[in-house]
Amino acid sequence: MHDFDQAIAMEPQADGTFIGHTSPAYANMVGPFGGISAAQMLNAVLVHPQRLGDPVSLTINFAAALAPGSFVVAARAARTNRSTQHWIIEVLQGGETVLTGTVFTAQRRETWSVDEDAMPICPPPDQVPGGEGPIPMEWIKRYEMRPVAGAMPKVWDGSGDSSLTQLWVRDNPPRPLDFASLTALADTFFPRVFVRRATLVPIGTVTMTIYFHADQSQLQASGTGYLMGQARAQAFRNGYFDHTAQLWNEAGVLLATTHQVVYYKN
Amino acid sequence: MHDFDQAIAMEPQADGTFIGHTSPAYANMVGPFGGISAAQMLNAVLVHPQRLGDPVSLTINFAAALAPGSFVVAARAARTNRSTQHWIIEVLQGGETVLTGTVFTAQRRETWSVDEDAMPICPPPDQVPGGEGPIPMEWIKRYEMRPVAGAMPKVWDGSGDSSLTQLWVRDNPPRPLDFASLTALADTFFPRVFVRRATLVPIGTVTMTIYFHADQSQLQASGTGYLMGQARAQAFRNGYFDHTAQLWNEAGVLLATTHQVVYYKN
Repeated sequence: MHDFDQAIAMEPQADGTFIGHTSPAYANMVGPFGGISAAQMLNAVLVHPQRLGDPVSLTINFAAALAPGSFVVAARAARTNRSTQHWIIEVLQGGETVLTGTVFTAQRRETWSVDEDAMPICPPPDQVPGGEGPIPMEWIKRYEMRPVAGAMPKVWDGSGDSSLTQLWVRDNPPRPLDFASLTALADTFFPRVFVRRATLVPIGTVTMTIYFHADQSQLQASGTGYLMGQARAQAFRNGYFDHTAQLWNEAGVLLATTHQVVYYKN
Repeated sequence: MHDFDQAIAMEPQADGTFIGHTSPAYANMVGPFGGISAAQMLNAVLVHPQRLGDPVSLTINFAAALAPGSFVVAARAARTNRSTQHWIIEVLQGGETVLTGTVFTAQRRETWSVDEDAMPICPPPDQVPGGEGPIPMEWIKRYEMRPVAGAMPKVWDGSGDSSLTQLWVRDNPPRPLDFASLTALADTFFPRVFVRRATLVPIGTVTMTIYFHADQSQLQASGTGYLMGQARAQAFRNGYFDHTAQLWNEAGVLLATTHQVVYYKN
């Protein structure tokens, strides 16, 4: 069983909630890798007996660091329409809220479609060497990352001038792409402030939103291939910066767009 | 009293909820202008006696069209930390959920800051003539819009090739900028699919997220001036498209970044 599948497993409870467990394989500096928390939250909706359709959007708010161990996921379909559904989700430990979120699902129909954001032109993954994380962390070992531009600085000398990163990324070991793994992959970008400033400062993501453009067939077509991920900050201001990011498959199909706000110190 | 202040007024109830009312001045094709709903949702947090700090992010999900009349806003501080707070908000009519959302607030401290996204170079507002909406709607009269690029097509002939819009926008009549009005302004972009396709199709926003980079002093400094708004779709795919957008004040300070997903037919 892949570490990822073990990490996102949900045990249904009699009261309609789920029990999940933090995963040592996806540990971050403090608490879990945010992407695995987001995937766990989404998975509670994916395995929910009342779910209608596939995810179109997800927002997760990181209210507190999860302690190692189990947690409760309370996912409620606040509104179910003919072909769409709105979920409110809370993750609790010891009766205290640690994560909040909303998910929008829909049955999609084929329509006129176009990708306005094209994949950046860059060498194929097998021609790009692997990169390194800013700090050794367990979750980073669960991903293969090959930065094309905006890799982690080799020297922390305050010399950065752009926060743009482009990289090939996939699960390690490879695993066929699905909504849950795409969710986690959307959070694999290292903090933009590290790239922009070539300086290590304390950080923590406070909120992340993912828009899923891919449907099941486009995820399946992506298989175990790499995704091209691109992320760039828009503003760093008084303790919080944002980033906007895109994820394409190797064929250049835009699978997801994502945004987040990250706390930083100094 | 400005129509906007009347529209976002919240009446506190004994059970901790608020009663709000839809505003004929901000009516859309079906139900209210989404921006006014977002401002109402945010205002329930802003006037809440338990609020800590200023808004950093807001996500609103449009679950159903509001019927004209009153609604209940239930805003709950799911988690309060030392200097941050996480809110879960539901708006109900007749006991049914019509909007869901989350808000993150924080006490901000001065830090190293930089805007990575610069305001586009464009003529000042007084040199740009006013533009027209795609369809006559009441809420459009509440805004002064001066498109610099990507105005509504004059002819609906399917000739579009980019969804980029840049425009000067402010309340009409002018009103000093605050978090609530910035929230509504973040939703004033006409549907990207109209611009990209030069074709009118049925649409409806399903989710919107706003990141507030501005603090109180930067909002005050913006006064009743125009904002430069820029919006661009990233993908149109099988019934849903997204857009990513930025709002600067006339001095070129990035006040907010925002994203949304919009349903479209055909």
